[in-house]
Amino acid sequence: MSSDPDFSAPTVRPSRRAVLTHGAAAATAAAVGVAAGTQLDSADAAPPSPVVPFYGEHQAGIVTEQQSNVVLAAFDVTAGRAGLRRLLDDWTALGAALSEGRPAPARKQQPAGLAADSAIASGLDPARFTMTVGLGPGLFDRRFGLAARRPAKLDPLPSFPGDDALDEVRSGGDLIVQLCADDPQVLSHAFLQVRATAPGLARLRWSDTGFISRPSNGHAPRNLLGQQDGTANPAPGPDRDRLVWVDKSAEPAWMHGGTYLVFRRIRLRLPDWSLTPVAKQDQAIGRRVDGSPLSAPAGADPSTPLDLDAKDATGGPAIPARAHVRQMHRFEMYRRSYNYDRGFDPHAAPGHGADGHASAGHGHGHGHGHGDGHGDGHGDGHRHGHGDGDGHVGHDSYDAGLLFLTYTQDPARQFVPAQHVLATVDDLNRFLQTTGSGIFAVPPGLRPGRSLAAGLV
Amino acid sequence: MSSDPDFSAPTVRPSRRAVLTHGAAAATAAAVGVAAGTQLDSADAAPPSPVVPFYGEHQAGIVTEQQSNVVLAAFDVTAGRAGLRRLLDDWTALGAALSEGRPAPARKQQPAGLAADSAIASGLDPARFTMTVGLGPGLFDRRFGLAARRPAKLDPLPSFPGDDALDEVRSGGDLIVQLCADDPQVLSHAFLQVRATAPGLARLRWSDTGFISRPSNGHAPRNLLGQQDGTANPAPGPDRDRLVWVDKSAEPAWMHGGTYLVFRRIRLRLPDWSLTPVAKQDQAIGRRVDGSPLSAPAGADPSTPLDLDAKDATGGPAIPARAHVRQMHRFEMYRRSYNYDRGFDPHAAPGHGADGHASAGHGHGHGHGHGDGHGDGHGDGHRHGHGDGDGHVGHDSYDAGLLFLTYTQDPARQFVPAQHVLATVDDLNRFLQTTGSGIFAVPPGLRPGRSLAAGLV
Ligand code: HEM
Ligand code: HEM
Repeated sequence: MSSDPDFSAPTVRPSRRAVLTHGAAAATAAAVGVAAGTQLDSADAAPPSPVVPFYGEHQAGIVTEQQSNVVLAAFDVTAGRAGLRRLLDDWTALGAALSEGRPAPARKQQPAGLAADSAIASGLDPARFTMTVGLGPGLFDRRFGLAARRPAKLDPLPSFPGDDALDEVRSGGDLIVQLCADDPQVLSHAFLQVRATAPGLARLRWSDTGFISRPSNGHAPRNLLGQQDGTANPAPGPDRDRLVWVDKSAEPAWMHGGTYLVFRRIRLRLPDWSLTPVAKQDQAIGRRVDGSPLSAPAGADPSTPLDLDAKDATGGPAIPARAHVRQMHRFEMYRRSYNYDRGFDPHAAPGHGADGHASAGHGHGHGHGHGDGHGDGHGDGHRHGHGDGDGHVGHDSYDAGLLFLTYTQDPARQFVPAQHVLATVDDLNRFLQTTGSGIFAVPPGLRPGRSLAAGLV
Repeated sequence: MSSDPDFSAPTVRPSRRAVLTHGAAAATAAAVGVAAGTQLDSADAAPPSPVVPFYGEHQAGIVTEQQSNVVLAAFDVTAGRAGLRRLLDDWTALGAALSEGRPAPARKQQPAGLAADSAIASGLDPARFTMTVGLGPGLFDRRFGLAARRPAKLDPLPSFPGDDALDEVRSGGDLIVQLCADDPQVLSHAFLQVRATAPGLARLRWSDTGFISRPSNGHAPRNLLGQQDGTANPAPGPDRDRLVWVDKSAEPAWMHGGTYLVFRRIRLRLPDWSLTPVAKQDQAIGRRVDGSPLSAPAGADPSTPLDLDAKDATGGPAIPARAHVRQMHRFEMYRRSYNYDRGFDPHAAPGHGADGHASAGHGHGHGHGHGDGHGDGHGDGHRHGHGDGDGHVGHDSYDAGLLFLTYTQDPARQFVPAQHVLATVDDLNRFLQTTGSGIFAVPPGLRPGRSLAAGLV
């Protein structure tokens, strides 16, 4: 199937999609290239390229200008150390090929007579495909003799107040693969090819799919609460590098150029949100729907700095004490999250049905004060409460929210305290329900010929 | 929220996405416009438009050049006749607004103080958004006094051999909404706004999400078996019109300009497919992975007509007797299907784990003859068989396939016999598992000021 004429040579035909984002992508690539001191041929090439280089000081997909689609897939390794090495070798070859729009190469133990590539993306350009691989804490237990190589900051996340909806089988994993591209079909193909490397070596643990759409006015993209999300994200440059890439003095050499990924699968309580008046929504976050901070006039540019001392008309803080941006502002974090919308699973719904206004117990303890017949029809027959232990009931029925992804130098310093504050003080938290979680060490990028396994196993 | 400055005026700024497909979209729009005799301002405007007109002789989203993303949502009506009318009125207003990139309008019974629009798509253009509404057979039962208005061809589908995996709660529905756009975030927004109209009136029954990516070489897009799918679809023109739009002499006046939608949610047995040698894959379908019919040389253009009499080297039929295209070729059908990939649901997997090669009973009765350790790692711990009653086991664990959608003049003549042949004779069928199904009458398009409810309730 590698001779399929439909596999386009992506360097010949520029991506239709890449054209759209080229300005920003090239700027990012240039910044990364400078920071990394590596050659990134997309940075100065005249025709825009749908290819994000697989090789470099860092893995792609971390500070790469965010693509529109993501697949996250976590695996548990079922083989021993040699099998783990083979798997990482296969993933290296696969990531390199798919990044350039080539078909999936034959695997190390490729069954004879069967197609190595499924052709699902044949004829499509790689659409800025990236594959990013992370290693879970479990990989450094006794199974593979890797305990001595454990990255310095790879401690399992503590459990946080309100984590009662966390689902063990949708969390963690020995390995994670983040696949990103501007085309969901390119990702469906890549995911199948990743799965095809697994038999006998690893077992798929969980997967998630997300999207994000960037408005053309340059504002941050919106999450599924309708908020501009990412406004305060650090810009490319040395400050962001310091937040993202590991501290070489603290880490084993094979992790230099790497980072840590913290993942939180956060379901949004959309009916509650829709039943909250706009003014209260704005107060929960500390910004208006136009992105302006509550400390500035409505319509102010979202980039206007927060003024945490500003007062409102009544003399109270303009940005309320429990507003998300006030609580989070002290934490420096590079987020690269995606929205997800899995829709409605009738089998997960209590009573095999869904109707916003019929959900018994809906909103109890929240005091949103909504009346009968005014549900928002998110159709999730959704029941919950704070601390009353029913967080699981119906949580799968309408399932949409945020695949929160942050790449950090030090999760214990940058993420854990922030999450603790979010879970205990932050007003936004009552609209969130974390159903999945994970922490992964993300090894550095590669030079051609080197495997993700090198230096590790 | 309707004053949000981020809501772009789509006529001012041409869609980035629409630019890409404008040629085809405009051609389609022109064809529709001519057929409909209506004004379609996107057809001759110089700058390409991200707006597919909501109004016209036919509903949009049927012969509209296929957008890259779809959401399907089925509802059961919980209110009476007046409620049904209100719901259809709300959907009309919503469809008209979202098609033009305007925020969702206030609903007929809009709760005071709450935002009518969730702002999720604020700042994004409508990305050729279309909303298409269909009516299930149940709507014409005694509940609404509509029995006398039942469209002529709206008979529930019979059950087909092999339908044992059909899931009642993922099938049917009083109403269906097909939302299409070139942007998944636009659809997530639209779906939320549709759900917001439902409380007290209707209950979400099931939903599905799909995508399709069109290669730039003009070939048909690929399904998740990697095949070019849609090659033999009828081209725009009177022949296709005859296949799609209802027979006015047979239908009540309010259905003139309408059609019928048949939906089949078809899960693909991806591990079985991956374990099938390429030559056998080609024989099951009757075409090669490059799209060429087996009756023509490899590399022939996919549009080369099938030669059903051609012989292969051994004197047998070049296109095997049970090949899908041979079996289906006699049926004339306009398909508008989407791929779906829901990924892996650990809760649906037997034993909470997934490993292609560990699936006991995998492939029994299929005779694909694959050995141990050569599973393809689709990771679905997938077990099935033909007629041994275990079709449900693990069918949710890795869930990817086709949202088969066909718009037909007469489902009993155009779809039912084809599906019967597919289920009994067709070689492709052993890779398919139908898990959802539905039939809907799709009323005609509207002129401004008229509601989807007009002529019905
Ligand atoms: C679904 C869950 C979440 C939603 C809807 C959400 C939403 C937002 C929004 C709208 C902003 C303001 C715009 C911006 O600067 O990006 C923001 C800022 C921020 N969020 Fe979240 N967030 C969520 C979860 C989290 C989590 C889990 C963390 C970390 C524990 C976090 C950390 C931050 C930080 C550090 C900022 C920047 C604050 C600043 O410097 O002004 N968020 N978030
Ligand atoms: C997941 C399930 C299915 C797959 C993967 C599939 C795949 C294909 C492919 C690859 C072709 C050849 C290219 C083309 O002309 O489009 C084709 C043709 C066709 N299929 Fe299917 N199909 C599926 C289900 C169905 C169903 C349920 C029906 C109707 C009952 C159907 C009816 C047709 C027809 C009428 C043609 C055109 C045949 C011709 O005139 O050459 N297919 N299909």
